[in-house]
Amino acid sequence: MYNTNDLKYLGNINSPDDLKKINIDKLNIVADEIRNVIIDTVSENGGHLASNLGIVELTMMLHYIFNSPNDKFIFDVGHQTYTHKILTGRLKEFDTIRKKDGLSGFPKRIESMHDIAETGHASTSLSVSLGVEVANKYYNSKNFVVAIIGDGAMTGGLALEAINNISHIPNNLIVIVNNNEMSIGNNIGGISKSLNNTINDRHVQDMSKKIKEAIGILPFGNTANEIIRRLEGSIRNFIAPGIIFRDLGFKYFGPVDGHDIKELANIFNQVKSVDGPIIIQINTKKGKGYKPAEEHPESFHGTGSFHISTGKLKSNKVKTFSSVAGDIIINEALINKSIVAITAAMTAGTGLTDFANKYPDRFFDVGIAEGHASSFASGLSINGLIPVLFLYSTFLQRAYDQVIHDIALMNLHIIIMIDRAGIVPDDGETHQGIFDIAYLRIIPNIVILSPTNDKDFEAMFNLASITKSPFAIRYPKDKIENEYPKNITTTNISIGKCHIVTEGSEAIIISYSTTVNTIYKALEKMGDTSSFTLINLLSLKPLDEETLIKYFKKHNKVLIIEEAIEYGSIASAILELINKNNINDNEIKSKVYIHALPNTFIETATRAELLHKYGLDEEGIINIIKKYLK
Amino acid sequence: MYNTNDLKYLGNINSPDDLKKINIDKLNIVADEIRNVIIDTVSENGGHLASNLGIVELTMMLHYIFNSPNDKFIFDVGHQTYTHKILTGRLKEFDTIRKKDGLSGFPKRIESMHDIAETGHASTSLSVSLGVEVANKYYNSKNFVVAIIGDGAMTGGLALEAINNISHIPNNLIVIVNNNEMSIGNNIGGISKSLNNTINDRHVQDMSKKIKEAIGILPFGNTANEIIRRLEGSIRNFIAPGIIFRDLGFKYFGPVDGHDIKELANIFNQVKSVDGPIIIQINTKKGKGYKPAEEHPESFHGTGSFHISTGKLKSNKVKTFSSVAGDIIINEALINKSIVAITAAMTAGTGLTDFANKYPDRFFDVGIAEGHASSFASGLSINGLIPVLFLYSTFLQRAYDQVIHDIALMNLHIIIMIDRAGIVPDDGETHQGIFDIAYLRIIPNIVILSPTNDKDFEAMFNLASITKSPFAIRYPKDKIENEYPKNITTTNISIGKCHIVTEGSEAIIISYSTTVNTIYKALEKMGDTSSFTLINLLSLKPLDEETLIKYFKKHNKVLIIEEAIEYGSIASAILELINKNNINDNEIKSKVYIHALPNTFIETATRAELLHKYGLDEEGIINIIKKYLK
Repeated sequence: MYNTNDLKYLGNINSPDDLKKINIDKLNIVADEIRNVIIDTVSENGGHLASNLGIVELTMMLHYIFNSPNDKFIFDVGHQTYTHKILTGRLKEFDTIRKKDGLSGFPKRIESMHDIAETGHASTSLSVSLGVEVANKYYNSKNFVVAIIGDGAMTGGLALEAINNISHIPNNLIVIVNNNEMSIGNNIGGISKSLNNTINDRHVQDMSKKIKEAIGILPFGNTANEIIRRLEGSIRNFIAPGIIFRDLGFKYFGPVDGHDIKELANIFNQVKSVDGPIIIQINTKKGKGYKPAEEHPESFHGTGSFHISTGKLKSNKVKTFSSVAGDIIINEALINKSIVAITAAMTAGTGLTDFANKYPDRFFDVGIAEGHASSFASGLSINGLIPVLFLYSTFLQRAYDQVIHDIALMNLHIIIMIDRAGIVPDDGETHQGIFDIAYLRIIPNIVILSPTNDKDFEAMFNLASITKSPFAIRYPKDKIENEYPKNITTTNISIGKCHIVTEGSEAIIISYSTTVNTIYKALEKMGDTSSFTLINLLSLKPLDEETLIKYFKKHNKVLIIEEAIEYGSIASAILELINKNNINDNEIKSKVYIHALPNTFIETATRAELLHKYGLDEEGIINIIKKYLK
Repeated sequence: MYNTNDLKYLGNINSPDDLKKINIDKLNIVADEIRNVIIDTVSENGGHLASNLGIVELTMMLHYIFNSPNDKFIFDVGHQTYTHKILTGRLKEFDTIRKKDGLSGFPKRIESMHDIAETGHASTSLSVSLGVEVANKYYNSKNFVVAIIGDGAMTGGLALEAINNISHIPNNLIVIVNNNEMSIGNNIGGISKSLNNTINDRHVQDMSKKIKEAIGILPFGNTANEIIRRLEGSIRNFIAPGIIFRDLGFKYFGPVDGHDIKELANIFNQVKSVDGPIIIQINTKKGKGYKPAEEHPESFHGTGSFHISTGKLKSNKVKTFSSVAGDIIINEALINKSIVAITAAMTAGTGLTDFANKYPDRFFDVGIAEGHASSFASGLSINGLIPVLFLYSTFLQRAYDQVIHDIALMNLHIIIMIDRAGIVPDDGETHQGIFDIAYLRIIPNIVILSPTNDKDFEAMFNLASITKSPFAIRYPKDKIENEYPKNITTTNISIGKCHIVTEGSEAIIISYSTTVNTIYKALEKMGDTSSFTLINLLSLKPLDEETLIKYFKKHNKVLIIEEAIEYGSIASAILELINKNNINDNEIKSKVYIHALPNTFIETATRAELLHKYGLDEEGIINIIKKYLK
C-alpha cells in the first residue's frame, strides 16, 4: 500500500490550488502518483477501477485550468470521481473509500464543497448541469459549469432530453463527452457510433456522389476526379464525430487525446473564451496505466479486491442470486422458444453473460436505457414473445411509468427480474434496492414474488413463464449457500401462497427473501425453531390472505421483518389485509410488530455491516424477537 | 350532428378493406367526411381536435396502402387516433368517444384488433414498435410495423432511447414523424429545429468555407466562386432535415406533404420495398380543415365542447386548482426573486400561461421531458434558485427516479406542483392521478400537502417557498367554488398539522383535498355536521400524528375516505401510524374503515361520473357513512 509521504507531488496537494502551483511538465508524475493510489486502494477495497484510471489526466487538467468550486464540475454517474476526490483534499482518507464511515465511492455534498451534485445513476449530469448553469446566468455569474459524461451514458433518455433542451436555452455549459467506447458493457446504439466514426463512409459517399453530379456539369469535367479527391478530405474532416451535436447547435471540439496533458490544457483554455453550449469529445482509454484493466475493462468496471501483480480477484466466484438467475433463464430458454432476455447495460451484473453468448438472437442489451428496455419488452410481448427484463431494483425506478403504462395497463406477460433488491453493498445511497416493493405493489395486475434460495427461485421462474401477467421476481445481491435448512422453503410455488417454515405456539414471524434464512438461523441459535410459526411469504403480491388470516387468528403476536423501506412495503400490505379482515368481522386481535428499514437513504457499507446496523442479521433478529415476542 | 347515412363514402366503410375499394381520386371526399365527423363529435364531446384534424389523410393512407392488423400501426400518445377508429369499424359508436361506457379517446386493445398498443403518454411508440418489429423478425414475418409519432414527442427521452437502439438492432421498422411544428405547446429543442431546418445555414457556411479552402489550392482558383455556388445547392440539399436520423443509420424519406393523398400513397408504397429502419418525415398542419383550430391549435389540442360556427367554448372559464396555481406563483414570484417555474409541455394545462408571459426569463418549458424537468430543477436548486415544477400526477411517474435521485437524495428545496392528482375526467386509464401519494410518500425527505380550496392552497405554497426540502403539493383537476363552508379548512398551514373541521362524538372521518368538501356537504345533507369529527389532513406526509392519536383515543370508529389507489396511500399510512402507536402502548382500539379507489386502472368518464361510480360523491359518501358509522 502507498504511503502518502512517499508521494512526491501528490502528498503536498491538499486542494486544486496546490495542483495549480505545479509546473505542467511535472503533471505526468502527478498522474502516475494518482494512478498508483487508485490501483493500490481499489485492489484492497474493491471499487470502480477502469473508469477512474481512464480519466486521471482529464480530471487533473479540469482542476488545473478551471477553478473549482467557483467553476462547477458535475460528474455523470459519479463512480469515476476518485481523482477528483484525491485532488480536493481527500487523499489522506482515500483508503477508506467505499468502506463504512469512509469516503463514498460517489460524489457527496457533505464530503466536499467540490462535490456539487450527488450522482450514482447514469445520464443525470447534463440536466443538473444545465440547471446550475442557468442559475449562474440568472445571477450574472461568469463562472463555468462543466459536465463530464461518458459516451455510454449518452444512451440514457434523460441525457438526450437534456441535450435537446440545452440546444434550446441560451447557456455556456461545457459538456465533456468522455469517449471510452464502452459504458458498463459495450456501447449500444447510433449516438455512440457517431462519436466514434471519425470517417463516416456512408456520408462521404453520398456527398461525393452529389458533388460529382454538380461538378459534372461544369466546364472542367475531366478534372472532376481530382477535385473530388481533394474535396473528400474536407468532407471527411467536416463529417467528423459529433455531427449530431453540431446539428443540435452545440459548438463541437475534439476529439482530444484524453491522456495528453498539454492538449487537454489547450482545449480547456480555448473553450473558456467561446460562447456555448460547447461539447468537447475527449477520447480516453479505460483502465489506462494498469494492464489487466486495459485488457479487460469490463472485469475492472466494478471489481472486488484483487492481486495487483496478476489482476486476479482475491475471492473466488460463488453462487449468487444473479448467477442462478442466469442459469435459470438458460435452462428455460432451451425448452421455451418464446423466452427472450433484455437488459440495460447490466449483462454481467445480472448474470446474463452466458445467455448472451449462447442465445445472441434472443438477447437484447439496449444500453443504459431502462425505460426503453421496458417499453421494448412491451412490444415483444404484444407480438407473442415472453420478454424477461433484467434490471437492478434501483434502476427499475427509471422505468416506473413504463412499467405502469406499457406493461401493467395492458396486463402483458412480461417477467421482470429485479436484481439487487434490498440492501446493496458498497455503493451507498444511490444503489439501494429498498423502494421496489412499495412502488410496485400499488400497480394493478402485477404479481411480485421473492425467492429464498436457488430452488424456489427456479420454481418461481417456471411459474412466471406460464403466467400471463406482469410478473416480478425480486432478489438481493447476495450469495446462495449450497447448504440451507431443507424446510425453509418449497418448490411448490403458487401465486398467493406462502410457506410455513415452522409451527409454534409463541407467536408468528413473517418474512421473505434471504431474511427468512437469517431468522431461521437466529431461531436455531435461540433453540426456538419450534416455538414460533415462521412464515416465508414467497408471494408478496398477492399475499396468501387465507393462510395468514388463519394463523393470525391463532396468535396474538405477529412480527414482520423485512429488508425494505418502512412505509408502504409488505408490513403495510399486511396491516391493510388485517384491517380489511377486521372490517369483515374476521376479528384479528394480533398485535403487529414491524421491523423494517427506516424511511431514510441507506449509506455505504458492506451488506453484512448494513444488515447488522439495521438489525437484520442474526444478532439483530435475536434482539428483535427477544424485545417483542419474549 | 352528422348522420352516418348521409356520409356517402364513410357510411359504407366498416373496415380498412372497404376503404381500399374506393378509388384514390375520391379519397379527398372521404377525408372531408372524416373531418366533419370529428369536428361535429368533438364540438359535442370535447376531445383532442387539432392533432386529429392534422393526420386525417396520413391515417387514411396508412390504411389504404398497408394492411392492418397484419401490418401493425402504433400511434404515439394515442389521442390522435380518431380517424383510425373511424376507419376500423367504429364510426357508428364514434359519438360515444370519451364518454362513460363509450369509445376511449385513446387506442384500446379491447375495442379493436387494429389497436395494437394502448398509448396515452407520449414518446412510448418507438420502443413498443421496435419490440413488435423484432418479434416479427423472430417469427420471420414480413408484415410491416409502423410507428406514428409527433415531432413534439421526440423531445421525450424514451423516444430518444428508442431511436438510438433502433439504429443498433437490425429491423425494418417504419417510423413516421408527424411534423406539425408543435406538440402540446411549442416544440422545444434542437431535434425539432433540425426537422424543420430545410436549410441549415450554419452547416452550409462551414462547409462552403472548407470547400473554398480546398478549391483555392486547385489550379482554377478564379472559377472557385462558380464551383462553390453550384455546390452549395448540393450541400443545402444534403443538409436537409433529418440529418440526425441519417447520421444514426436510418433511411430518411421526406419531407412529404401530409395532406397530399397521392404523395402519401407514393411514399408508403415506395418504402415497402426498402430495408429499414426508415424514417418518413410528414409535414402536417394541426387543425387542418377547421379554421379556428388552424389558427389556435393549442386551444384546440384538448378542448371542451364548443360552438362549431365560432370555435368558442360552450362553458365559461371557471376558477380551478390549475388556474389558482398559476395565480399563486405569479404573486409569489413578485416578492421572491428566487422563484422560477418549470413545466414539461403542460404550460396551459397547469395554469402557467400568464406566468410564462410575465416572467419569460423565469419560465422553462422543457418540452415533453419530465425526467429532465426534474433533474434540471435539481441543478437550479443546487445553485440557489427555488424551482417550482408543474407536472400532472400521471406524468410525474415518468420522473420517479429523478425525484428520488436528483431531488430527495440531496434534500433540495424544490416545489413539485402535482396537478390532476386523483380522478381525471375524460382521458381514462392513462391519465388518472391515483398513484402519486403511494409512490411519493415512501421517498425520504419529501413533504406532501394537499389543499382543499384556493385559500389553503396559497398558504401551502407560501410555506413551501420557505421550507428547504422537497415539497409536493397535489391537487385535482377540478373547479374551486367561490363559496365553501368557512370551517372546512384553515390558512394556518404547518407541516404535519391537520385541521379539525367539525367535532362530534359518533366517529372520526378523515380525508383530504376536495373530498373533504364533499364529505362536509354529505354531512350537511344528513344533518350530521355536529355528530362526527371530520379531519382535513392537509399534510399527507408527515401526518399530524399527535392530533390523530388524540382523536383516535377518543373514538372507536375511524373512517378514512380518499381519492387514491387503495394500497399504499394515506389509509395505509394511518394504519402504519396506529400500529406504531399500539406498539408504543398508545393502545388504539379504533376500528378503521377505509374507502379508497380499488387497485385497478380507472376508466374513462367525467369526474362526476367516476366519483359517483367509486362512491366518492355526496351520495356515495352518505352510503359509506351509513354503512360503517351508523
